[in-house]
Amino acid sequence: VSENFADRLHAAIEQKGSPVCVGVDPTYDRLPAPFRLEPAGKSEKIDAIERYCLELLDIVAPIVPAVKPQSAYFEAYGSAGVRTYFKVVREARRLGLMVIGDVKRNDIGSTAEAYAAGHLAETDSADAVTINGYLGSDGIDPFVKTAAPTGKGVFVLVRTSNPSGAQVQDFAGADGKKLYEHVAERVAEMGAKAGLVGRCGMSCVGAVVGATWPAEAKRLREIMPQQIFLVPGYGAQGATAADCKASFRKDGTGAIVNASRSVIFAYTQKEYTGMDWKHAVETAAKAFAKDIADAVKG
Amino acid sequence: VSENFADRLHAAIEQKGSPVCVGVDPTYDRLPAPFRLEPAGKSEKIDAIERYCLELLDIVAPIVPAVKPQSAYFEAYGSAGVRTYFKVVREARRLGLMVIGDVKRNDIGSTAEAYAAGHLAETDSADAVTINGYLGSDGIDPFVKTAAPTGKGVFVLVRTSNPSGAQVQDFAGADGKKLYEHVAERVAEMGAKAGLVGRCGMSCVGAVVGATWPAEAKRLREIMPQQIFLVPGYGAQGATAADCKASFRKDGTGAIVNASRSVIFAYTQKEYTGMDWKHAVETAAKAFAKDIADAVKG
Repeated sequence: VSENFADRLHAAIEQKGSPVCVGVDPTYDRLPAPFRLEPAGKSEKIDAIERYCLELLDIVAPIVPAVKPQSAYFEAYGSAGVRTYFKVVREARRLGLMVIGDVKRNDIGSTAEAYAAGHLAETDSADAVTINGYLGSDGIDPFVKTAAPTGKGVFVLVRTSNPSGAQVQDFAGADGKKLYEHVAERVAEMGAKAGLVGRCGMSCVGAVVGATWPAEAKRLREIMPQQIFLVPGYGAQGATAADCKASFRKDGTGAIVNASRSVIFAYTQKEYTGMDWKHAVETAAKAFAKDIADAVKG
Repeated sequence: VSENFADRLHAAIEQKGSPVCVGVDPTYDRLPAPFRLEPAGKSEKIDAIERYCLELLDIVAPIVPAVKPQSAYFEAYGSAGVRTYFKVVREARRLGLMVIGDVKRNDIGSTAEAYAAGHLAETDSADAVTINGYLGSDGIDPFVKTAAPTGKGVFVLVRTSNPSGAQVQDFAGADGKKLYEHVAERVAEMGAKAGLVGRCGMSCVGAVVGATWPAEAKRLREIMPQQIFLVPGYGAQGATAADCKASFRKDGTGAIVNASRSVIFAYTQKEYTGMDWKHAVETAAKAFAKDIADAVKG
């Protein structure tokens, strides 16, 4: 049995000094000019995305403990894109980064086992994946069963950062409880099972909790004391470091904040005008890491 | 603008004479003996799965209107598996089958658009995909926007067939409504928008409604009069043709019933002992199609 995922992630965060994660969400049209060739077909585009991602990883690896490649931007290019996705995952791990595969997979029984086999089971697969819990424990257990013994983890969607998440997740229950609180209770239960909680007191079953709803994050922190929160919504989606703080435990552990576009496409932002794309990414990644580290400490 | 997905699916069902779909859920260990070589590595296994799937499609194409390849069983083999998935989708379409890609994807905004680009946008992509609606309309609209103008569709998970689906989907609301009914209302609203409803009166935004809960299916038929129901749970999961009937409209249209293992692995079942695997699949597919057609008429 390998070291627990929560312990591994905490160690990585400790080593880099900030609980942050860079989302790798590459779109061809936003790549720095040197990567774009016109005219470019699908094959040239995914090749460019691959070269860009590999350079990006080299830049952020010394700064942040984790990256979160978003599968969709690779799947857009069919099986060639999926090949690139797995190459990015492998290369990130080789560079010592923790890798959270943002795949939001969901299914039941042997079908969920097949997803887990593809996305978690290999030694060079992602360290953790995001999953969608709408199908209940039948849809979560097979991922956990694959993840836990090999020191890997899952993050179950509980409260997403997007505006319309409320349409479903805020559905109000008979006892005043909202759906996301009910899902959070199930995740807390599942994550507390024998063998899932690490030395740090946290479970390899984590939760996705958007930074855009800080009051709800505070409540969810109470419902899920043992879950590591993966926190999207900082930066491009409008949440501040102060908003993210609600997702952490009092000792400043227990969560990891993600930023994607505001870091990887930093060179398209006004404040970095005139800066070389690599330098812009490095500067933005450092500023992001410092902003979150300061907020968590303060 | 292409013909509406609902009209295309109804025409295909009419032509084949039964509202059924064969789920393509291949696992190497259950392939007929001629496909299995020992020892086999991952590469030999996915090659065998591909050969088997292509032969399977030839057998079922004259019998059923649609197939539903399950992405997980292909993704288990990494990018090589994904290449096979897309090959199966293309070949099924070439054989005149409607293809429902069972991918259960979900995300928001430009990320959901990227999934739609990968799984729906190409002329040789699937005719429809399954999606998970936990993220609300932000997570559904981008799929519909890609699907609708090209005659394609989506099936949103509303009530899944598995036992633990109830843990989340039966969450009881303040007004006695359950979560799956609330999700169904959102799906009905979204699917009623301009340009989404075909000549047949049904929308290109459909719903997944498990056959294992017939009383709930009846209620959902009322909430979603314009949704085509994709109905899993028949056969291996225990639902009968009579159970499936609740998902259809009174005129016998508006739903398509899926069977996977009970058809594609028919040769492993007692009743087909001694029968060649191809003949077993053919016999089981015909029996399935007749069983559902009779129940819907009766």
